[in-house]
Amino acid sequence: MRSLFFALVLSIFATSSQAAGRPNVVVIFADDLGYGDLGCYGSPTIRTPHLDRMAAEGLRFTDFYVAAEVCTPSRAALLTGRYPIRSGMCGVRRVLFPNSKGGLPVGEVTIADALRVRGYKTAHVGKWHLGIHAGSRPLDQGFDQSLGLPYSNDMDARPGLPKGSTGSPNPPRDGWNVPLIRNGKIIEQPTDQTTLTKRYTEEAVAFIREQKTSPFFLYFAHTFPHVPLFASPEFSGRSRAGIYGDAVEELDWSVGQVLETLRSEGLAENTLVFFTSDNGPWLIMGDQGGSAGLLRDGKGSTWEGGMRVPGIAWMPGRISPGVTTELAHAMDLLPTALALAGAPLPSDVTLDGIDLAPLLFQNQSPPDRPFFYYRGDQLFACRLGPWKAHFKTQTGYGQPKPEAFEAPLLFHLGRDPSEKRNVAADHPDVLSAIQNAVTAHQAGVVPGPPQLD
Amino acid sequence: MRSLFFALVLSIFATSSQAAGRPNVVVIFADDLGYGDLGCYGSPTIRTPHLDRMAAEGLRFTDFYVAAEVCTPSRAALLTGRYPIRSGMCGVRRVLFPNSKGGLPVGEVTIADALRVRGYKTAHVGKWHLGIHAGSRPLDQGFDQSLGLPYSNDMDARPGLPKGSTGSPNPPRDGWNVPLIRNGKIIEQPTDQTTLTKRYTEEAVAFIREQKTSPFFLYFAHTFPHVPLFASPEFSGRSRAGIYGDAVEELDWSVGQVLETLRSEGLAENTLVFFTSDNGPWLIMGDQGGSAGLLRDGKGSTWEGGMRVPGIAWMPGRISPGVTTELAHAMDLLPTALALAGAPLPSDVTLDGIDLAPLLFQNQSPPDRPFFYYRGDQLFACRLGPWKAHFKTQTGYGQPKPEAFEAPLLFHLGRDPSEKRNVAADHPDVLSAIQNAVTAHQAGVVPGPPQLD
Repeated sequence: MRSLFFALVLSIFATSSQAAGRPNVVVIFADDLGYGDLGCYGSPTIRTPHLDRMAAEGLRFTDFYVAAEVCTPSRAALLTGRYPIRSGMCGVRRVLFPNSKGGLPVGEVTIADALRVRGYKTAHVGKWHLGIHAGSRPLDQGFDQSLGLPYSNDMDARPGLPKGSTGSPNPPRDGWNVPLIRNGKIIEQPTDQTTLTKRYTEEAVAFIREQKTSPFFLYFAHTFPHVPLFASPEFSGRSRAGIYGDAVEELDWSVGQVLETLRSEGLAENTLVFFTSDNGPWLIMGDQGGSAGLLRDGKGSTWEGGMRVPGIAWMPGRISPGVTTELAHAMDLLPTALALAGAPLPSDVTLDGIDLAPLLFQNQSPPDRPFFYYRGDQLFACRLGPWKAHFKTQTGYGQPKPEAFEAPLLFHLGRDPSEKRNVAADHPDVLSAIQNAVTAHQAGVVPGPPQLD
Repeated sequence: MRSLFFALVLSIFATSSQAAGRPNVVVIFADDLGYGDLGCYGSPTIRTPHLDRMAAEGLRFTDFYVAAEVCTPSRAALLTGRYPIRSGMCGVRRVLFPNSKGGLPVGEVTIADALRVRGYKTAHVGKWHLGIHAGSRPLDQGFDQSLGLPYSNDMDARPGLPKGSTGSPNPPRDGWNVPLIRNGKIIEQPTDQTTLTKRYTEEAVAFIREQKTSPFFLYFAHTFPHVPLFASPEFSGRSRAGIYGDAVEELDWSVGQVLETLRSEGLAENTLVFFTSDNGPWLIMGDQGGSAGLLRDGKGSTWEGGMRVPGIAWMPGRISPGVTTELAHAMDLLPTALALAGAPLPSDVTLDGIDLAPLLFQNQSPPDRPFFYYRGDQLFACRLGPWKAHFKTQTGYGQPKPEAFEAPLLFHLGRDPSEKRNVAADHPDVLSAIQNAVTAHQAGVVPGPPQLD
């Protein structure tokens, strides 16, 4: 009894101490989850009650973007608050591969770097995909601890793996030799992917529970629903959307576990949780790829389906429940997290995001600002207000080369969210304003040394 | 003071009397609203806070269907609980026109007929489109009162109306000669459509407020967002989705007014409100047409986008908030309403719907049952469980003739909600089960005398 009492007192004390301090930040990042794959974004087939509740209690974004249409550059942008071209984390080879020499330069300032020097405990759980060499790995990039895969779960295929295994509804469990790494050391190879979401979740929950005195930053980057798709026995075969739905429903369960832990630890009102996805759905995977809902195209494309993704911010009591149609993007998370922590922005670094706190907490509209759609190191499109101009396009499913337009295409994303009707001829003034925004942006871009090629 | 006191006493007495009695039924029916046009169904551009709240408080259907891909047969099916082929309300000419001779046969039993004989007060507000001749009009079909348009708002065009006016973002206000009719008498011609949603709403609210002693059935069939699109000054130019969004946002406001009236009159917990749309979005209208979200095609087609529509049931305290993926359809509303009212089903009438009360109130799954997709009087497709077979297809945008398939197409709507991947070759057993369901259905169909041709 006595020990229980002391434990209780200690727990209350510890929780209060933590809960009263600077806000915690949790980023939950899905992999290849599409704009249309959650119940709260209109999926008719995948059940996501925890994310739906998160959205109902928080702020759901209709116009949230990531900075790239594929994995590596999108992750680099989120963690650094910068378009990937500035860090060199984009190129002709569009992501890092196990044999790549490059990675996120050690000089880049990540959210973890900036918060750790301000006394935050920092943890990475899940997929990394920002480099496997010294300087680029999680512990080199501001994280106190790390558990996860170094790159995508379809890389490092076993020799002789039958063709089509990656997009199979029932992929071979030992088909990929991808290692599970804890703090730089391989602890399992090949990784048993069937329990990966569950084990990631246990790690994330344990990390949150351990933080009794310091504020923390948790970067929880799921491996799924990237192919090959696996789910725990509890989720396998449960969704009517097949194994893709199973994987997303397990991911939804995981989000529920994280939020419930924050609630039960008394931390919910002092923790900003942001959920999003690294890029749109991988449409060529068919039944094993997701859906961008009404948006055009998916992963690999600068059409909206490739780069507009679910975005949900949650901080009960601080963020009023609602839906916002304001444009925001993953590069805003660094300035937002740093502002919450009272940390200064990194000096001598060009940032591309803004602090979203006024939008999140006071429902104030951010200033109008352009958004730039890059594919690799090339600028393909630009959005300004409701207008989007395409200078080049390329589908995410097999178009071998981009199509460049002498006269850019122009779409009104409010009246035509599916980008069906080019209205460029009617709006030369809009195109001119967008061209000016592009010129100004490009004048300020100093490309970093290419890391992917 | 005294009169106020008596009014108050009377009001409490009346309300209690009404509130304690048999449940009221309200059906709110949008026109050409697509599956993807509400916030709670994933629209990124149209703000629908009242319908989103209705969904959050009620039961939102992911798989709710209407019985036809165009207006007239869909309405006939909803009010009679029968596939339109049984009533003759379908044909080569797919809807009624002002010069049509036919209409809903007087012998058909509508929800209004069945409830009125059980003491319900019945009102029709909005578009009718089930016939303008004796026997087919609202007061002939079970309604005590009626205010609305006899057919679509784009019919009866003014001579010399410029081409393209119907789908214009700024249609001429006097472009159509459509009359506004109250209880069989024209009260305005041409109707000022800019205030139509507002006036319909006032009528609906007044009707609800007047029902102090009897239970009631309100059939509120909006004119919009069918083209030509108009909105009140308060809503005009407000949506970022253009005039289509303006019209839907005003419709959303209207739904809010109805629900708020039910709440303030103390009737919310004793009134089943069902919201849906008569068919999918009219895609050829471009910016002035809606979106079916991730569903394929739209109005005029038996692809999912033509016939799967938003469906929201609301009855606070009786219906638990949630989302259901169970299949249900508009022909279920008659048996459901009659069961709620304790009314017997019409005798000697073949009904195609079921009582949804066990699903609505006890979360019990309905029995598995096929759903049949008709275009005109031809059966084009059939759904059984998650599977859908197409025997014929025709797009809603200009394909002149249907394409018939010797080997039906087969889609799994769970894994492939956008109907992209025909898997017929892999599932002959499923096709065979569907063929059996079709054969059984067709053996039981006695087509009614054609009304539309």
